[in-house]
Amino acid sequence: MKFKIKKKYLLRGIQAVSNAISPRPVIPILSGMKIDVMQSKIILTGSSSDITIQSHIQSNINGEEIISEISSGSIVLPVPHFPEIIKKLPKEFVEIKIEENFKTIIKSGEAVFTLFGQSSDEYPQIEINKNEEQQLFIKGNDLKTLIRQTVFAVSPMESRPILTGVNVTVENSLLTFTATDSHRLALRSVTLDSEDIEMDNIVIPGESLQELNKIIDGNEEIIQISVMNNQVLFYTDNIYFLSRLLSGNYPDTSRLIPNDSKTSLHISTKDLINTIERAALLSSRDQNNVIRLDTVDNNSIEISSYSPEIGNVQEKLEVISIQGEELKISFSSKYMLETLKSIESESVQIDFTGPMRPFIIKTPEDENILQLILPVRTF
Amino acid sequence: MKFKIKKKYLLRGIQAVSNAISPRPVIPILSGMKIDVMQSKIILTGSSSDITIQSHIQSNINGEEIISEISSGSIVLPVPHFPEIIKKLPKEFVEIKIEENFKTIIKSGEAVFTLFGQSSDEYPQIEINKNEEQQLFIKGNDLKTLIRQTVFAVSPMESRPILTGVNVTVENSLLTFTATDSHRLALRSVTLDSEDIEMDNIVIPGESLQELNKIIDGNEEIIQISVMNNQVLFYTDNIYFLSRLLSGNYPDTSRLIPNDSKTSLHISTKDLINTIERAALLSSRDQNNVIRLDTVDNNSIEISSYSPEIGNVQEKLEVISIQGEELKISFSSKYMLETLKSIESESVQIDFTGPMRPFIIKTPEDENILQLILPVRTF
Repeated sequence: MKFKIKKKYLLRGIQAVSNAISPRPVIPILSGMKIDVMQSKIILTGSSSDITIQSHIQSNINGEEIISEISSGSIVLPVPHFPEIIKKLPKEFVEIKIEENFKTIIKSGEAVFTLFGQSSDEYPQIEINKNEEQQLFIKGNDLKTLIRQTVFAVSPMESRPILTGVNVTVENSLLTFTATDSHRLALRSVTLDSEDIEMDNIVIPGESLQELNKIIDGNEEIIQISVMNNQVLFYTDNIYFLSRLLSGNYPDTSRLIPNDSKTSLHISTKDLINTIERAALLSSRDQNNVIRLDTVDNNSIEISSYSPEIGNVQEKLEVISIQGEELKISFSSKYMLETLKSIESESVQIDFTGPMRPFIIKTPEDENILQLILPVRTF
Repeated sequence: MKFKIKKKYLLRGIQAVSNAISPRPVIPILSGMKIDVMQSKIILTGSSSDITIQSHIQSNINGEEIISEISSGSIVLPVPHFPEIIKKLPKEFVEIKIEENFKTIIKSGEAVFTLFGQSSDEYPQIEINKNEEQQLFIKGNDLKTLIRQTVFAVSPMESRPILTGVNVTVENSLLTFTATDSHRLALRSVTLDSEDIEMDNIVIPGESLQELNKIIDGNEEIIQISVMNNQVLFYTDNIYFLSRLLSGNYPDTSRLIPNDSKTSLHISTKDLINTIERAALLSSRDQNNVIRLDTVDNNSIEISSYSPEIGNVQEKLEVISIQGEELKISFSSKYMLETLKSIESESVQIDFTGPMRPFIIKTPEDENILQLILPVRTF
């Protein structure tokens, strides 16, 4: 095995694939990165028990020679040493070749590294198959929005494993991500371009989606999603991201969402974030960072909180409009801030149905987002 | 007690003083920040068992009214709550006043905070006296250089407490900082403007100097240094920094420094840093990150390292000049990188007196810096 490559392309691939590699995997060889060298491209693979990431680097990109002096073969190289070495190489090009006993020579300028590699025969066979029947297409920036506006609401606790994942459904060309930890719910949909799409409901581990979010670009490039054998594959021409799915039935969350509203608040997102951040400074951590919201009159609310040892805070805040009944309600400032910061809209609409019922945060311009928070009983 | 102040001045003072406050001090009230309000200024104080920092904010700065509506008094407010609140206030001005039972009201725009303060009578009396007889003057940027080029070499171990400090001496208008952990030594001098300066030798804890370095500006402003009662005071018009001193005799380090040189190397600092950083990737952590330097010919050296499980690296490096005997020597890459990164010179001069003797790193243009590293025996 031998090849010469432009360092920046190799480095980009290595950085994507590194996200899948954990320092102490169940199978020891998975602590390394696999390199497969072919005439037309090289493939880098990193894998953990939950996800596998592959980066494909083509020898020729738009007529530019990226890889040359190719002789086929494979090797598994140690992480983090291999990525760290490539990052610090002195020159634009690097030559990599295998000698006897999987010793791998990495050369760039005057720097010559020898790394003790392992046989790729020891590396588990990972099948990356596309299922043409369970397949859909989505823009990178839309997929990032779906992840960012839902994944923070998954449960961190293993007591109900299915809630550590994000529920993904397709219905009438609408792709919907839903996450809940049973105290709050985050739901986001995107309309797909093609019609007649069929895909089984799946539940993807929240941690897998967080890793996926790191390696996809937030642009218009199309990402394909394909489901098979209890796994989901996200891929472009260069990157393949495979995650296991969670098994079990995701709870029916639709009945949590109230249909009526007794008090409706329209407010600047930024003003509300700033005021709640101030109130959160004195919300007691023991009490789940609870803060209180009171309607004051037709165009203002008061946000307050209280920490028995430290002190208290009140702040009156002008809103765009309030409609309906007076309201006093308490909720977690942490949940509210995570929700508001995931929303990109300048203003939000909050619909309450009384101090003990879940309330909904939406944006005026976009029907495809719905966030729900359960209040906290304090009085 | 009552005052109204421009937030940015209060915030700057709070941030400097916060560096002295530890979350779990021996005396509980030292977890708070003391505020003394006078007609002409307010004084903020933070203190730990090692250091005390005071920030003085004048009511009037260059004719601009910074503080108004002043009524004198003092209070101790909880940290980190008080700094966090000031940082997040919505408006340019903030009003602070004490009500009954040390309840402190902090108001800015519509935000109203109440903090439970403590009586300043409980706060230890900290005497900040200037000793006019043991006093010297130094520019802020010179003081920062003295600290930065020495403090990294203090010992992290309490086994010889005196080595956890930096030795400070004045002789013939030359102010010298020396630090050693007995494996390496860092020495830096600055010529003082005034003559006939007398000051006792003192040893300042390395941690105190690291905190001091955070709060002094690297400009031409003069900082006064004054020694008394086993304490050292660094001060300007606005900031007072008081540290305890270490007691005991600092070892005589002058006999460590070799006078002769058998091999002398002149080399680009940046090239050497980059090459050693690459070699350090494969230096074994168990073996104290040791790397090896061999002279090759009249204008090049080879840097190499070896990790039994991972692999090895060699790199040939051109130098500006080599004079004297051939050399093979091994040393800690960590010590060498810390030394080279503290030096601002484009090139360094390294003087060796054989593979088992300490070697010296100097800069061609500045006699006032001397760094010494003990080699490691590997062959």
